[in-house]
Amino acid sequence: MYEHRVQYYETDRMGITHHSNYIRWMEEARVDFLDRLGWSYARLEEEGIVSPVVSVECHYKHSSTFHDRIRIEVAVESLTAAKLKLRYTMTGEDGKTVCTGRSEHCFLSPEGRILRLSREYPAFHAALAAQIPPEGGAPDAL
Amino acid sequence: MYEHRVQYYETDRMGITHHSNYIRWMEEARVDFLDRLGWSYARLEEEGIVSPVVSVECHYKHSSTFHDRIRIEVAVESLTAAKLKLRYTMTGEDGKTVCTGRSEHCFLSPEGRILRLSREYPAFHAALAAQIPPEGGAPDAL
Amino acid sequence: MYEHRVQYYETDRMGITHHSNYIRWMEEARVDFLDRLGWSYARLEEEGIVSPVVSVECHYKHSSTFHDRIRIEVAVESLTAAKLKLRYTMTGEDGKTVCTGRSEHCFLSPEGRILRLSREYPAFHAALAAQIPPEGGAPDAL
Amino acid sequence: MYEHRVQYYETDRMGITHHSNYIRWMEEARVDFLDRLGWSYARLEEEGIVSPVVSVECHYKHSSTFHDRIRIEVAVESLTAAKLKLRYTMTGEDGKTVCTGRSEHCFLSPEGRILRLSREYPAFHAALAAQIPPEGGAPDAL
Repeated sequence: MYEHRVQYYETDRMGITHHSNYIRWMEEARVDFLDRLGWSYARLEEEGIVSPVVSVECHYKHSSTFHDRIRIEVAVESLTAAKLKLRYTMTGEDGKTVCTGRSEHCFLSPEGRILRLSREYPAFHAALAAQIPPEGGAPDAL
Repeated sequence: MYEHRVQYYETDRMGITHHSNYIRWMEEARVDFLDRLGWSYARLEEEGIVSPVVSVECHYKHSSTFHDRIRIEVAVESLTAAKLKLRYTMTGEDGKTVCTGRSEHCFLSPEGRILRLSREYPAFHAALAAQIPPEGGAPDAL
Repeated sequence: MYEHRVQYYETDRMGITHHSNYIRWMEEARVDFLDRLGWSYARLEEEGIVSPVVSVECHYKHSSTFHDRIRIEVAVESLTAAKLKLRYTMTGEDGKTVCTGRSEHCFLSPEGRILRLSREYPAFHAALAAQIPPEGGAPDAL
Repeated sequence: MYEHRVQYYETDRMGITHHSNYIRWMEEARVDFLDRLGWSYARLEEEGIVSPVVSVECHYKHSSTFHDRIRIEVAVESLTAAKLKLRYTMTGEDGKTVCTGRSEHCFLSPEGRILRLSREYPAFHAALAAQIPPEGGAPDAL
């Protein structure tokens, strides 16, 4: 479980966290998720895997502000041969859901060729697939 | 039509614009859109309208980088009594779509009460409604 | 000792941490320093102390990049009746100094009146004064 | 003269522009200054000149906030064979100085060798030197 402490420079003049920062925290939590999976950004780079963000979305439920500790849970929502969808649940110290999000990623060779993970990097594909929550055990839909 | 020049500090070590910045440019374009509509943030504040972001989404089509000029078109996608959806199309100098996005907004009184714009601020509601593109004339769906 | 992990979104297209982020890390370390001193931003706010940044400076020694752990040491450089100067030393995992910095702060009442800490908040003034390194024991000058 | 419009996401919960952003605006103004000089970042890159920031400083005089137009004047403060110092004066719409700043830059080959501009890129050195204000005509010292 990744934790982000809200910084003063992340607030805006409404007195709350500016909404764009949650997209950045999704990246922080994703980096940590891949580290713990054994497939850090450094390893992906060494193995010749580039992984651009294809789309993101964020649904704001409750505001947060300076000094709040936000816990961020990452789950694999779906995985095809070439595309990964992650889901994020961000929770405040009072247990309230602050924000939910999604991001979609593809995988490219350094030359920009689309990689089919399942065939070209089966170990990475299997590691991700093992993170898909069992039927019915998934967090509530966004 | 709003234009954003990509700044050096908006790029990342992939050599391209970091994906979180597009969410910020959507805000820049929204501020400009409301200015041109005659309902600037300053006026909304004076009239006692607070407008939090309920959700955002971004679909990345082509990368952009430092010094690129990005044109951003804002359209009203839908408007109900209490909720506004905006759609964004971002285009590079070569005419390619760089990114499309959406944001959803509600309207609150300074005390946090949900405002029904259609009844409480009919002039603002009408100004927004007049921006809905005619049937069939809308840009391609996201 | 505060630690900051460099985020992907903090890098730029030179492949290194963008120089503006060190100013933000100085704020992170300052918040942590005041927390540990027992005078958190929350307490300052409650006690009616507003503390704007008067000046900052940063001297870049070695670059850092994504995933680096940067340790940030904060020291009180000087303290007068109404003004505080802090000094920052940022060190990479290899022990090299990445960056040194300074920030200067004054103290205002919520109405904007300049506070003389030594007289109006002697406990806070004493807590800060106790952090001044002994003569000769200070880190190397910036 | 470069102009920056303060964005909503650049404000913080004090209701004013967060101090770290002025460092970013100095970069924006510097990019524009070099463009107008005929030595854009793109040209520097083509010619094999890398120019890291060696130090920055910022002195905050008056706060600014969302939607303010800030005019930023850049001047060459000093230029030696290998080092450039720039000075920045930022002015609000009411003519008040918001902030003054300085940045220091060296010049490297793509391999990291220190370049002596005066000898290796005399045309660029001369273009910069021509921007040094005449004795006595300089803006007030920082």
